[in-house]
Amino acid sequence: MSNGPARRITLLTDFGTRDGYTGALCGVIAAIQPDLRVDHAGHDIPPGDILAAALALDRYWRLYPPGTIHVVVVDPGVGTKRRGIVALADGRVLLGPDNGVLTLVLAATPDATVYEIQDPSLLRSPVSRTFHGRDIFASVAAHLAARAELPDVGPRVDDAVLLDLPRAERDGNGVTGAVLIEDRFGNLITNVPAEMVPATGQVLIRDLAPIPIRATYGEADAGAPLALVGSSERLEISIREGNAAEGLAVRRGERLRVEPA
Amino acid sequence: MSNGPARRITLLTDFGTRDGYTGALCGVIAAIQPDLRVDHAGHDIPPGDILAAALALDRYWRLYPPGTIHVVVVDPGVGTKRRGIVALADGRVLLGPDNGVLTLVLAATPDATVYEIQDPSLLRSPVSRTFHGRDIFASVAAHLAARAELPDVGPRVDDAVLLDLPRAERDGNGVTGAVLIEDRFGNLITNVPAEMVPATGQVLIRDLAPIPIRATYGEADAGAPLALVGSSERLEISIREGNAAEGLAVRRGERLRVEPA
Amino acid sequence: MSNGPARRITLLTDFGTRDGYTGALCGVIAAIQPDLRVDHAGHDIPPGDILAAALALDRYWRLYPPGTIHVVVVDPGVGTKRRGIVALADGRVLLGPDNGVLTLVLAATPDATVYEIQDPSLLRSPVSRTFHGRDIFASVAAHLAARAELPDVGPRVDDAVLLDLPRAERDGNGVTGAVLIEDRFGNLITNVPAEMVPATGQVLIRDLAPIPIRATYGEADAGAPLALVGSSERLEISIREGNAAEGLAVRRGERLRVEPA
Repeated sequence: MSNGPARRITLLTDFGTRDGYTGALCGVIAAIQPDLRVDHAGHDIPPGDILAAALALDRYWRLYPPGTIHVVVVDPGVGTKRRGIVALADGRVLLGPDNGVLTLVLAATPDATVYEIQDPSLLRSPVSRTFHGRDIFASVAAHLAARAELPDVGPRVDDAVLLDLPRAERDGNGVTGAVLIEDRFGNLITNVPAEMVPATGQVLIRDLAPIPIRATYGEADAGAPLALVGSSERLEISIREGNAAEGLAVRRGERLRVEPA
Repeated sequence: MSNGPARRITLLTDFGTRDGYTGALCGVIAAIQPDLRVDHAGHDIPPGDILAAALALDRYWRLYPPGTIHVVVVDPGVGTKRRGIVALADGRVLLGPDNGVLTLVLAATPDATVYEIQDPSLLRSPVSRTFHGRDIFASVAAHLAARAELPDVGPRVDDAVLLDLPRAERDGNGVTGAVLIEDRFGNLITNVPAEMVPATGQVLIRDLAPIPIRATYGEADAGAPLALVGSSERLEISIREGNAAEGLAVRRGERLRVEPA
Repeated sequence: MSNGPARRITLLTDFGTRDGYTGALCGVIAAIQPDLRVDHAGHDIPPGDILAAALALDRYWRLYPPGTIHVVVVDPGVGTKRRGIVALADGRVLLGPDNGVLTLVLAATPDATVYEIQDPSLLRSPVSRTFHGRDIFASVAAHLAARAELPDVGPRVDDAVLLDLPRAERDGNGVTGAVLIEDRFGNLITNVPAEMVPATGQVLIRDLAPIPIRATYGEADAGAPLALVGSSERLEISIREGNAAEGLAVRRGERLRVEPA
């Protein structure tokens, strides 16, 4: 597998920034590749929240230029037999535990190849039992960044773990779907792709008042719920200048129905 | 308008770092200008809090060298008709929604010039309805950073939106003012400038016990309230080794009176 | 004292990222040394929590290559007579208030040398009474980074402030120790070093059920407490896929006893 010279590593973790764990990742990288750029894509993934990590990664991995190495460390299974993997997808390199954090990357790139991390020369030594972000993922990423060609990190993986995300489905003249997650603003991101969203219509959730589909926030009054195609090209439910997750008391996993006008 | 080569972009947002939105900004910049430095000035502005963003920006924008491009994305009006603007102020370039986030910059630099962002060649395409931080501000900033001269981004703006901040006023032998905001430590930042603060005296808020004016924290006992000139050259009310906002139950907007001894 | 060319500065603070204070540090550095790399090691140290800062710093300072300049600004004593210091330890340079934040660095490096910051040419002028992170530590760090040799910052310090951390002690066939701190995941980090932890045994805290010592998380059921040697080479108490600090209601300072099987 081939790969242009890496310009940078990005880091996405659930470490927060109060314990020095992210500093440990950056220190390992700096010791191996002092001139490499490291972007903090975010460290406030809720602890152990693999779905949140997968969706966050989906928002940026392909915006970076080819050659970028994206590291994801949300790893509640550290210290079990779960594998560490490297994926090569659309010219970007992605590293993380094999627990589903790459689900959306792999769903979007059928030609992606995945490898299990095994080559001990790429690891920090000794490898701790509890902190593979430092001892495996940061170390491997920095070593990969030094090579023009991706080295053999280990055997090919054909059964990478994928999250079982619900799929939106056409249902009569409407669509049934589900809320995938809420964001910091309380927007409810659904699994309904833009191409299944009618220009006018409404969204039904439980016995809540129907939520009108709008093109943009400006078409709703402050404090009013609306549904619109968001920046991830999925239907989102929002409250203008408010927090829909709190205001509607809706959370991830809830079912919904989209009805055209 | 002219501008030296940009050394870096800074980012200030209310995105937090749990959703990957900041990664999206950095990815867009990296794809356009891979060698540019990007400083995270902070992503924990409370959602939609324009005043907090304006005051945070005021703490750092002029400390950076000329040529720096400061991006502010606190944008509760995204998807309405609010403009996106670029300001050239004291050799720095500032980008953001035209909603008041640049209020203190423009108040401090009467010679600043402001332009509306219109040139479509500077934008990501297509521009989403909900994420102008990614599609407009990050993209324009990266393109601007590539040019020795600022290009024509769009028409001159002479009526940029400004927050209506209360002003401190002399009142007899004292000063009446107000709390602008609280910071993470619970310090209450007021609108009373250093030059209106007497060397000795006290601050009165509601029926609270008078708060003595001190030169430095060291002159107060642990747990005791004091008022002093803070790092923004404004009067601040603090509790030494404590949280004044919580301990005094005072929040932004509350009126106060400064009395000399 | 001699020092290779600095590749980067790292910053660890309790500023959060909502107020622009970290932007101020970076702006000061950028104005003095525009080409220097600045790593955000973390800004979410709880306000004024010197112990948390000392333990966070301990997790990364030596992973960075020699020549790195580590700045720590957790400074509840700003505005009192507490000194600002620079330490040279194992080839790294560390700056911060003399309040104990360097305790673990100095404990690990008996050959470290410490100096009081006095040279006014290294400081921002004027120095505020409340923000030495900006006016002293960031400024001095950026100036130090420019020199091949560390300049005379001020007089040698032989009595740097050290936190009085409890020490683990052998006690019959066991060990008595204490919880030092909890991390974001609720792991309870103790003062018991790896070499005092038996391969099998249990940990006793108050009247809680004995907590078994394991080699790795994979040996415990989800939701079950376990004790293991963590990434800092200290005994940690965890709940697999859970939060031990909350689940066990144990916090920093609590005593414990390690008993071999």
